Amino acid sequence: MDIQKIREDFPILHQQINGRPLVYLDNAATSQKPLQVLEASANYYRNINSNIHRGVHKLAQSATAAHEQARETIAKHLNASRPEEVIFTSGTTDSINLVANVLERSGTIGEGDEILISGLEHHSNTVPWQMLCEATGATLKVIPVLEDGSLDQEAFATLLGPQTKVLSVNQVSNALGTINPVKDMIAAARKVGDVITVVDGAQSIPHMAIDVQDLDCDFFAFSGHKVFAPTGVGILFGKYDLLEKLPPWKGGGEMIRLVTFEKTTYNDPPFKYEAGTPNIEGGIALAAALDYANAIGMDNIYAQEKLLLDRATAGLSEIDGVKIYGTCPNKASVLSFLIEGIHHFDLGSIMDQMGVAVRTGHHCCQPLMSRFGITGTVRASFAVYNTEEEVDAFIAAVKKGAMMLS
Amino acid sequence: MDIQKIREDFPILHQQINGRPLVYLDNAATSQKPLQVLEASANYYRNINSNIHRGVHKLAQSATAAHEQARETIAKHLNASRPEEVIFTSGTTDSINLVANVLERSGTIGEGDEILISGLEHHSNTVPWQMLCEATGATLKVIPVLEDGSLDQEAFATLLGPQTKVLSVNQVSNALGTINPVKDMIAAARKVGDVITVVDGAQSIPHMAIDVQDLDCDFFAFSGHKVFAPTGVGILFGKYDLLEKLPPWKGGGEMIRLVTFEKTTYNDPPFKYEAGTPNIEGGIALAAALDYANAIGMDNIYAQEKLLLDRATAGLSEIDGVKIYGTCPNKASVLSFLIEGIHHFDLGSIMDQMGVAVRTGHHCCQPLMSRFGITGTVRASFAVYNTEEEVDAFIAAVKKGAMMLS
Repeated sequence: MDIQKIREDFPILHQQINGRPLVYLDNAATSQKPLQVLEASANYYRNINSNIHRGVHKLAQSATAAHEQARETIAKHLNASRPEEVIFTSGTTDSINLVANVLERSGTIGEGDEILISGLEHHSNTVPWQMLCEATGATLKVIPVLEDGSLDQEAFATLLGPQTKVLSVNQVSNALGTINPVKDMIAAARKVGDVITVVDGAQSIPHMAIDVQDLDCDFFAFSGHKVFAPTGVGILFGKYDLLEKLPPWKGGGEMIRLVTFEKTTYNDPPFKYEAGTPNIEGGIALAAALDYANAIGMDNIYAQEKLLLDRATAGLSEIDGVKIYGTCPNKASVLSFLIEGIHHFDLGSIMDQMGVAVRTGHHCCQPLMSRFGITGTVRASFAVYNTEEEVDAFIAAVKKGAMMLS
Repeated sequence: MDIQKIREDFPILHQQINGRPLVYLDNAATSQKPLQVLEASANYYRNINSNIHRGVHKLAQSATAAHEQARETIAKHLNASRPEEVIFTSGTTDSINLVANVLERSGTIGEGDEILISGLEHHSNTVPWQMLCEATGATLKVIPVLEDGSLDQEAFATLLGPQTKVLSVNQVSNALGTINPVKDMIAAARKVGDVITVVDGAQSIPHMAIDVQDLDCDFFAFSGHKVFAPTGVGILFGKYDLLEKLPPWKGGGEMIRLVTFEKTTYNDPPFKYEAGTPNIEGGIALAAALDYANAIGMDNIYAQEKLLLDRATAGLSEIDGVKIYGTCPNKASVLSFLIEGIHHFDLGSIMDQMGVAVRTGHHCCQPLMSRFGITGTVRASFAVYNTEEEVDAFIAAVKKGAMMLS
């Protein structure tokens, strides 16, 4: 795989920060966008932009066709059994809130019921469930995190029960990189009863092939911007039967069949869940982004990122006082760490001076940070366009920061 | 004003449809985007793309600064008293659903209360309120529409009362073009008591200067894509005191102050209402779009559109069997009509053959169509980049369609 050739698709990477070449290792926060994706957006606006679904004229038809083609591309990428299982949202957060809200509106969750999440969750997969519990009287339960950043599967087994109504876990932890065995966890949940299973795929979508039928999840949520697409567009996959059965969330155009002031009836999925003009350009750009990733190959992406992760992990391990958070064997390319006696913010600032962009702080995972007794970490996260030289620059920057701040 | 020069900013307009020059008169559905806006997006991705608010590195700081600068530009455009009153959403529909949902969650709406909308509303300003009524036991009341497409202000006066908890009306009707006297209506509502006033500005934002302080509305909602910006980004203006008092809607990152599994506390406005990674690029592009509109001048835009509307109205009136829906004097550049004995869809299709893009159907206003005893109209809607020659081509296409279909 020719990484230099891939890098040519990302003009943003070829810049100097503070007189040094930019080393962008904040990919878990957001990915950079290749020219092919920017071109898909620009092309849309230069040639066919129109509102969709309700237009008789040529541009409206072209825009509608492009948008629905994008839905098919996304469905195929996820191996959904039909495109109607793919709902366009504004991002992972919007997707998860959609699920929590329609479950609330369905009236099927109440006192005595339990919502099961894990200690690894992002706030976006925590707060919506807390709000659901507050509204319904259900109880939030949390699968504990082991010292190596993996989930305590024994505890999970005892937490599961007939009272469990929802299981919602991420496939990859944004803070530690842990890859969770979501397929097995969903299978276990199916055994205890009628559990709605939700996978937060925000951090898995950029790193690995996704097969929602193989996972057998009821819902799978992700954001386009984590996987080479623009911000403002995301996806909620949902099993069709469930989408048919559950009530809508947002009201507006497109999600209705017939509106009178006395009574309104709703459209079929996916439109029932897509009120208002969607992010048309964003959906098309997301399909272009997935095409881009598939042209490289998800397995190739995973292999390259693993190589970078291993090199970075080895390099970090040689530095005195470094503690890595998230050390289980099955990890995506996220590397969270601290150096004894040094605040994450200070180290991140010094690294920025050297052109190395990492994230510092709680990574929207305050409960997880509390579990480890810390306020945050320094997090480097790698994408396929990162190089071994960049990993070396990263290690050099950590060393220099450690020296300056000790 | 040099319209040809403005047209150079919109490459999409310079194309042939079915061998004829495109005449794009579907601006009420979505506007076209000038190069300046496309460039703002592309520039963002080529130079500073990063996730915002939580990053210590240079790109994150630049992206955050650009996004918050966009908020200030938008606040200034609306004459909001502070930028914190501007909430980024995914569009008008998302904005109105936000208001309806937080009012539901606030627990202040219940049986005996009334939500007052008008017969001119888009489904996006109807269905969310129906859902609120269903959830709370409140009653939906509707201001009737007069024959000329204006609201029955006498009926409005009698509908208002101490039981009125919400007044939500559009400033411009998307289906008929009626400009509603929202300032006076809000003043009337303030007199009867503690009414939350919401203005659906989706169709006013492209045509006229907006001053939320002068309107004295509690909320003002609009979409970027109606006013030269991309799809997938919208705004909810809300008075700061209300935003502080009301509960959040979507849960996730950014909207929290402190998350523990036991208890979560929320951030201050506007962040409290902005869960998850926002449409960063979209917000920046929206600010660029408003800058573009202001460089032309909202008054100049209004004047040019009025000229086009008047010319088109005069031309249509000369055609046998034409009935215009929406004939009150105070109108934005939306022209809805039917020709006796001809279905709107058929006429729209013929016009498309001639390169003239108009919208046909119910315009997401089924109750309004029912009020006039029709299933839909043909709607031409004009933007500042449209020309008098295009209006003439439109009239010629209507004439030809009428001839062919009679």
